[in-house]
Amino acid sequence: MTPQAPTRAYRRLTVEERRSQLLRAALSLFAHRAPEDVSLDDVAEAAGVSRPLVYRYFPGGKQQLYEAALRSAADDLRHCFDEPREGPLLPRLARALDRYLAFVDEHDAGFSALLQGGSVVETSRTSAIVDGVRRAAAEHILSHLGVDRPGPRLRMTVRMWITAVEAASLIWLDEGKQPPAEELRDWLVEQFVAVLTVTARRDAQTEAIVRRVAEQG
Amino acid sequence: MTPQAPTRAYRRLTVEERRSQLLRAALSLFAHRAPEDVSLDDVAEAAGVSRPLVYRYFPGGKQQLYEAALRSAADDLRHCFDEPREGPLLPRLARALDRYLAFVDEHDAGFSALLQGGSVVETSRTSAIVDGVRRAAAEHILSHLGVDRPGPRLRMTVRMWITAVEAASLIWLDEGKQPPAEELRDWLVEQFVAVLTVTARRDAQTEAIVRRVAEQG
Repeated sequence: MTPQAPTRAYRRLTVEERRSQLLRAALSLFAHRAPEDVSLDDVAEAAGVSRPLVYRYFPGGKQQLYEAALRSAADDLRHCFDEPREGPLLPRLARALDRYLAFVDEHDAGFSALLQGGSVVETSRTSAIVDGVRRAAAEHILSHLGVDRPGPRLRMTVRMWITAVEAASLIWLDEGKQPPAEELRDWLVEQFVAVLTVTARRDAQTEAIVRRVAEQG
Repeated sequence: MTPQAPTRAYRRLTVEERRSQLLRAALSLFAHRAPEDVSLDDVAEAAGVSRPLVYRYFPGGKQQLYEAALRSAADDLRHCFDEPREGPLLPRLARALDRYLAFVDEHDAGFSALLQGGSVVETSRTSAIVDGVRRAAAEHILSHLGVDRPGPRLRMTVRMWITAVEAASLIWLDEGKQPPAEELRDWLVEQFVAVLTVTARRDAQTEAIVRRVAEQG
């Protein structure tokens, strides 16, 4: 309607914007290819920029690009866990899982590649990034459960459930995203309650939580 | 009593015996050090043999040694799952878990190192060995459950539980093997029943299994 409207398509991006653009391009490539098969040249092509530009941002090459992409994905994942400490516990967990599954859905095969590490590019640094996300997830859940000093049985239960959720999302991607995300989310929430209930039989702290959840209906 | 009795201490080992001896020595080293920190020289020293001998058995160096040790541990792990198809289901699962936890206990930190891979030595081949053990565990369980064609929900539930068991054993090692193995075993069996019960609400095949388990008391 207004062909003369000023276009911003060619304005210079800031360093941060450019970096995000390149990481987004890299993440979209990881969604279809193993990390070690994604070269800086591929990223340049996908982002529609020159090769020297990509090399300037990632002088450390493939490994640096992969780590930066992993860090950026890890940050996004952590945001999935942001949930106000208000209202009944299970709907909070369900909302966080909705965001998590949307993330998995969006990044698709790239999610598997990022979380499992590639055969060439996995290092203790990348494992530490992934473990950091797992730890953050556990801390979020324990804090929502409102326990100051979680005992070993409760902590172990939460960490086992998180690993099971991770396994579920990888299987879910493998199986063409079946069952639908909403069903998977409800199923995972119910499993959480079920394993907590088992732990409650041998742990008073967990028992108090299960009672509270039951009262919230 | 009979100092003249013929001693076999110095008889020549067969190739297979020697190989097992070296792998046992390597596995005992992995129990206390990361795979990439175990050299062939260390193995020679631990086994009390000459360096050239170790190099003859593992000309591919560290990586070959690690893979051979992983394969040998994977074979041992698979044996944990051998359980006659007789009697009620849960005691069968409990016995397999007893053997599995004894394996984890024996190999200790080496179990973590082997299953998680080292930062240097992990390759797609080693991941495939570990995944093979997970798959074997899932197949064993499904076959004990007596289902010919397990549906996706049942399969996902079993695979999630296996991942959770793996996580539990790593945490268990981290936490000085607490709770005691027998308690952990019972807890894991109860979790298995609990997650199956959740799945049974949305899957007729799983519901039939849960009913059968309940009838067996």
